[in-house]
Amino acid sequence: MININLSPRQKEIIKLVKQEQPITSEKLAAKVGVTRAALRPDLAILTMIGILDAKPKVGYVCSEKSSVSLVHDYIKKIKVNEIMTKAVTIDEQSTIYDAIVTLFLNDVGTLWIENNGNLVGAVSRKDFLKVAMGGTDLNKVPVGIIMTRMPNVVCVDMDDLAYDAAQKIIDHEVDSLPVVERNYENDEEKIKVVGKCSKTNITKLLVRLGQNL
Amino acid sequence: MININLSPRQKEIIKLVKQEQPITSEKLAAKVGVTRAALRPDLAILTMIGILDAKPKVGYVCSEKSSVSLVHDYIKKIKVNEIMTKAVTIDEQSTIYDAIVTLFLNDVGTLWIENNGNLVGAVSRKDFLKVAMGGTDLNKVPVGIIMTRMPNVVCVDMDDLAYDAAQKIIDHEVDSLPVVERNYENDEEKIKVVGKCSKTNITKLLVRLGQNL
Repeated sequence: MININLSPRQKEIIKLVKQEQPITSEKLAAKVGVTRAALRPDLAILTMIGILDAKPKVGYVCSEKSSVSLVHDYIKKIKVNEIMTKAVTIDEQSTIYDAIVTLFLNDVGTLWIENNGNLVGAVSRKDFLKVAMGGTDLNKVPVGIIMTRMPNVVCVDMDDLAYDAAQKIIDHEVDSLPVVERNYENDEEKIKVVGKCSKTNITKLLVRLGQNL
Repeated sequence: MININLSPRQKEIIKLVKQEQPITSEKLAAKVGVTRAALRPDLAILTMIGILDAKPKVGYVCSEKSSVSLVHDYIKKIKVNEIMTKAVTIDEQSTIYDAIVTLFLNDVGTLWIENNGNLVGAVSRKDFLKVAMGGTDLNKVPVGIIMTRMPNVVCVDMDDLAYDAAQKIIDHEVDSLPVVERNYENDEEKIKVVGKCSKTNITKLLVRLGQNL
């Protein structure tokens, strides 16, 4: 929260408006025991910082707004490329077993699956656990069989907002998003994975925001 | 909560002060293209809310308490009990197989393991995947065998800061923390799980902070 040192008179004005809204500046001045002119700077400040609203021909009311826009504005400026980290990819022909080993060796929660360097799918720890529980021969079946296939993998671009990435993670109930670059070759879209943005990256962002930079 | 919607001119002033600090109100007025008198209310507000500092005979400078530290102050007020969600627990005598089924049915990433209603350990999706890859008979081995055992499970209290929970998640490289209540019975500490605080909860918090509430 923003620490604004309101004067005792400003606090009194807020209290009076809360009790009697809407209230005109004449009535407020009478209650505070000063002239309207003396009250004008206080009322100007209280409306400008959004605590009071001045309604023409009605009077002053307490503002409906209650968010800290500065926090909101600040968070809405951070881009995915400021928080993304290295993505781990594997070819779709690799066996599920090799994919799981790659997952553990890199200590990540999601593998991005490629074909000729293009993103074709994703497999999460959850997908691997499901298949490891069944009777599948992990050494024979290629990872491409069990992946979530494009275009069903939710992606972000480097220039997208970190906030929008967080929103996508929550909305689509995934742990991680691939950060991609899209190019066209012979009218065909090529999607290259250049990073990832996971719940871990978002959690680190919140820790960063909470630190005194 | 206080809502501060800075006007375009106020934002311009902040930008100019950042570039040229210290800067006098005369120079600021010239750059903005208005009179000093016209700028006075904006400067009064920006100094009052702590974005600018007015140094006598020097000019205006950006306050140490910048918008980043306002974000910092705000984040440091949110408590774990505002963001925690329901924890899924299972008895340590349950088989690993039953634990994995519980994990999937509740669609969570971590199970908290109890004995007589007390927290004794934790098992994550990663732990389950590791054991499912090996030759273990999942239907015979109790989940207590593979769990991370107390006191090695990192916990938080309801009254802890969400920020500190996020920091613990990152420092200890875990996906989720149990929110616990500690009581003493016959000189013995009893730890009850009352919720969880995961990377998902932190990501949702960031989304909430980015929204205009």
